[in-house]
Amino acid sequence: MGLSGAAGMVYKPVEEIDLGPASNEFYLKANVKAPRMAGFLVKIFAWFLETRIIGTLLLYILKRNNLIHKLVSNATLEESPMFVPLHPFVDLKEQQVEQIDSDASPSERVQQAINCLPLISKKSPDDLKPKSFRRWTIADYSRAYSSGEITPLRVAEQFINAVRESSTGALSMSFFINYDAEDILKQASESTLRYKRGDQKSALDGVPIAIKDEIDCSPYPTTGGTKWLHKLGQVGINPHYGTTRNPYDPNKIAGGSSSGSAAVVSAGLCPVALGVDGGGSVRMPASLCGVVGLKPTFGRIPHLGVLPLNWTVGMVGILAGTLEDALVVYAAISGQLQSCEPTTLPPKLHVPLLNSANPISDIKFARYGEWFNDCSDEIRICCSNALHLLREHYKWETVEVTIPEIEAMRLAHYLTIGSECTASLSSYLEKLDFSKLGWDARVALRVYGAFDSNEYIKAQKIRNRQMEIHKNIFAKADVIVAPTTGVTAYTIFDDALKTGELDYINGGMSLDRISTALVRYQIAGNFLGLPAVTVPVGYDKEGLPIGLQFIGKPWSEPTLMHIAFSMQALCISQYRKPEVFYNLLNKN
Amino acid sequence: MGLSGAAGMVYKPVEEIDLGPASNEFYLKANVKAPRMAGFLVKIFAWFLETRIIGTLLLYILKRNNLIHKLVSNATLEESPMFVPLHPFVDLKEQQVEQIDSDASPSERVQQAINCLPLISKKSPDDLKPKSFRRWTIADYSRAYSSGEITPLRVAEQFINAVRESSTGALSMSFFINYDAEDILKQASESTLRYKRGDQKSALDGVPIAIKDEIDCSPYPTTGGTKWLHKLGQVGINPHYGTTRNPYDPNKIAGGSSSGSAAVVSAGLCPVALGVDGGGSVRMPASLCGVVGLKPTFGRIPHLGVLPLNWTVGMVGILAGTLEDALVVYAAISGQLQSCEPTTLPPKLHVPLLNSANPISDIKFARYGEWFNDCSDEIRICCSNALHLLREHYKWETVEVTIPEIEAMRLAHYLTIGSECTASLSSYLEKLDFSKLGWDARVALRVYGAFDSNEYIKAQKIRNRQMEIHKNIFAKADVIVAPTTGVTAYTIFDDALKTGELDYINGGMSLDRISTALVRYQIAGNFLGLPAVTVPVGYDKEGLPIGLQFIGKPWSEPTLMHIAFSMQALCISQYRKPEVFYNLLNKN
Repeated sequence: MGLSGAAGMVYKPVEEIDLGPASNEFYLKANVKAPRMAGFLVKIFAWFLETRIIGTLLLYILKRNNLIHKLVSNATLEESPMFVPLHPFVDLKEQQVEQIDSDASPSERVQQAINCLPLISKKSPDDLKPKSFRRWTIADYSRAYSSGEITPLRVAEQFINAVRESSTGALSMSFFINYDAEDILKQASESTLRYKRGDQKSALDGVPIAIKDEIDCSPYPTTGGTKWLHKLGQVGINPHYGTTRNPYDPNKIAGGSSSGSAAVVSAGLCPVALGVDGGGSVRMPASLCGVVGLKPTFGRIPHLGVLPLNWTVGMVGILAGTLEDALVVYAAISGQLQSCEPTTLPPKLHVPLLNSANPISDIKFARYGEWFNDCSDEIRICCSNALHLLREHYKWETVEVTIPEIEAMRLAHYLTIGSECTASLSSYLEKLDFSKLGWDARVALRVYGAFDSNEYIKAQKIRNRQMEIHKNIFAKADVIVAPTTGVTAYTIFDDALKTGELDYINGGMSLDRISTALVRYQIAGNFLGLPAVTVPVGYDKEGLPIGLQFIGKPWSEPTLMHIAFSMQALCISQYRKPEVFYNLLNKN
Repeated sequence: MGLSGAAGMVYKPVEEIDLGPASNEFYLKANVKAPRMAGFLVKIFAWFLETRIIGTLLLYILKRNNLIHKLVSNATLEESPMFVPLHPFVDLKEQQVEQIDSDASPSERVQQAINCLPLISKKSPDDLKPKSFRRWTIADYSRAYSSGEITPLRVAEQFINAVRESSTGALSMSFFINYDAEDILKQASESTLRYKRGDQKSALDGVPIAIKDEIDCSPYPTTGGTKWLHKLGQVGINPHYGTTRNPYDPNKIAGGSSSGSAAVVSAGLCPVALGVDGGGSVRMPASLCGVVGLKPTFGRIPHLGVLPLNWTVGMVGILAGTLEDALVVYAAISGQLQSCEPTTLPPKLHVPLLNSANPISDIKFARYGEWFNDCSDEIRICCSNALHLLREHYKWETVEVTIPEIEAMRLAHYLTIGSECTASLSSYLEKLDFSKLGWDARVALRVYGAFDSNEYIKAQKIRNRQMEIHKNIFAKADVIVAPTTGVTAYTIFDDALKTGELDYINGGMSLDRISTALVRYQIAGNFLGLPAVTVPVGYDKEGLPIGLQFIGKPWSEPTLMHIAFSMQALCISQYRKPEVFYNLLNKN
């Protein structure tokens, strides 16, 4: 049967599970049984994995030790498999929202979103110069361009200089895989002309925006961060194009896989960037780099043009310096899912009215204490304080809950993303000289391809089960709150720069480099397609950013953004400037 | 990577494929490389498959020889995977339909459907006695009960006698796995009382209806035709509960897996039966036993209570003596899919108005000649003649088309159903003593569990691709027409009765017993979730029934039923009485 002999977990019916704080469902800490490897060890490990007999045996042991056999492969559960986390569209009754015409052009939608933002005084950037640190927003760029204080062309020149400076010499931030200075200057000149004539396209005209190298973007090739079309993991260490460094401390990782997107926003090069989030890949780097990360409900943003690496868990997300900018870009790129999935009703597009005088009321947070606290002391204290502040300030409530089987969900998600990557890459891999791959990628690919169809389908049953569990949690509360990551950005080791890294403890998920500590709070967003947002709420003692995450009901983006905006409002005066930072609206 | 070295097919974009009759897409006959096995050979084969090293090698060779590596595992295709064939509900503009209130009770829906049937003279069954052969219909039962000519209790007694007679002695038809004479008589007595009081529930009150042993039905256990809960294949040969024999010739198979459902309708024991169709399992036995088989669009009939063996290809279907009765039961059991799949709009329920004076007009049939003709001479001639008759009589049109990659779709479907069965049965199998299984089931289970997650996902990409191809075919025509099976019912061999059968040529699909000849025309109905109906159109020279199949656009059941009804009208006077037949409305 291809089934191992290990006894499988028998899952009880969801309706019998106590989701309250006194539940006897125990919290299972990730059972990570593999050492951190880099350098020579990675090579040996890859070599063994690639042999037929020993490789098969090693994979079997890895799967068994990491509870995959027990919790997934041999599990008994009555749910049907749910293959795609596409929630029926529900027109939620939300507070303080504006409905945007889904058929309107992106420019019109941008304008409608801008109208939802708080009114900011018409002062020039210079007048606004930081009492506390703040990044320039889309509105700042738009105002500066419209008033003629600075032109898109001048900003583009400063942008190109900054990228050049950052990528040469000692610093080597590796912000971009591809940029075409000539094309950027040409676009900026055209934008400058439009502003002169007063016919700019929208508030986004001339604003630099970064696109993750997993989304098609003319005139650049989509490489997925590889020389052979494969994204290279979750920490931003890339031996092919250089490792993206954290602007708050260039010796630390930026987080991944949308590392570049997070780092350029953090460093002030772009107010907004697009990323793709398949396993926290937008929210993790956003949190580690101290910016906002928004991953909407599965199906909210069209997939068209996105490298199809993992169809059922990957979705486009937005990284931005402020929640306001995330909202503007959210309005611009939302649309109906262009796919064969059966969405019979085009979701209406609601956006939060952030400029309202009355904040939303009666919000209930679901908090699972054991999970919330499964992070570093500094993160736990910082996130708890932020949540406390938020609740006190707005008179919001917290409900203590138990979210069962989080570790089973993490494994099921891992198995899913691995299987889907394997299927999407198999035709490239066939033609490929494996010696051209990074060693860490060779290991990852071997592990990713180790699952059988029974395991894949079982993982989808766990998905359905967790859907039901989360539906029940959302019957008790509006949003789930948790830290965004279990650790802050950690140090890039020298040996990892050359071979890539297989840090199974800190930087790696049991069977891969996706860190259990990093991904611990990410999975529901991807595997269940739930919307989630991370907001910077403080810094550890090394000055590295900490994010707090809110996970919402399907299609509840407006409420999520309201909450995130409220959180940001309470923290923004404490925001710190990164070590690497560029002020592109500088007129000199 | 778990990928084999064999070169994979590179599929070209669907829009570049010529679907016209002069297309250079070639028709690939099923590449069956395995001998018919039964008796001792099956045991040896099972034993080898179950050993770790040789078994793995054998499976590898089977998969390679049967083109699975080339057409699926290593294939390059740009489509996203489509995991569930759930079509967005389209409210088609169809001719001569009545809308039935989806919220009405089943009884009310039955009455509304009855109103759509042609008016039949109020003669008693005796007066109607066959000039040509015909089976009693629901309307016949209802009329006879209402007029007091016969009671449900009397019919139940005759039913029980007939089943007893058929299951003992030389004949041993094996119609039912479970029936509870006491319960049947109790229900029949209650029904008789209701008719006496004039408060019968609906036209179905007191009418015997058979339920396939894969659908929950109080008070019977659902065994799936096994002693350990697994259905046993596609030909109706069951060493556990006895082999269902064909009423037209008890030495022949009834077809499977809804063999019992087909045989009891054919033999006059029930006017209607429910089956489950995962790979033609309703349409094949219906065709082989000379009755009507209707498999609606995926999602049209709720899954609730159906044994979850293969979630994405299995769906409830209806077997009936006449199209009219299929319509009545269709109206009774249709409803919204009760599942987590996102159907945001409850499909409206339209039924065909068969009592209309004007038949529908301007129907276009799509016919793929090479595929249509890939069957026995007798079937080809019989089906061609029937189609010709139909077109001439109603002035309907045929469009010659090419449907590419039918063999790749068959393999992808096989891989899907095998993987889903493995996942659904794995927890039973774990606890199971394999020596309690039939040898043929042991082989099937080993092969079913041989697929990896890459192969499963690739199969779903092929599903998406074929969805697109069929959409394009349906842009040219209303329905696809083909024979229902490539062969008529074949002889049950003695050795198969004990070990089950692995006839890879006639009775078996390349890697299993699902016959390529039997399933050749079934796959689109299951894998793409398209509605399909089979109607008896003649007999081969041995007197065995031949069926013609119509495959429709998603949600086009009313048109399909109109066409099938028109076909039936042209053939019904030629229908022959089976060798084994019971007349339950016989008053003596």
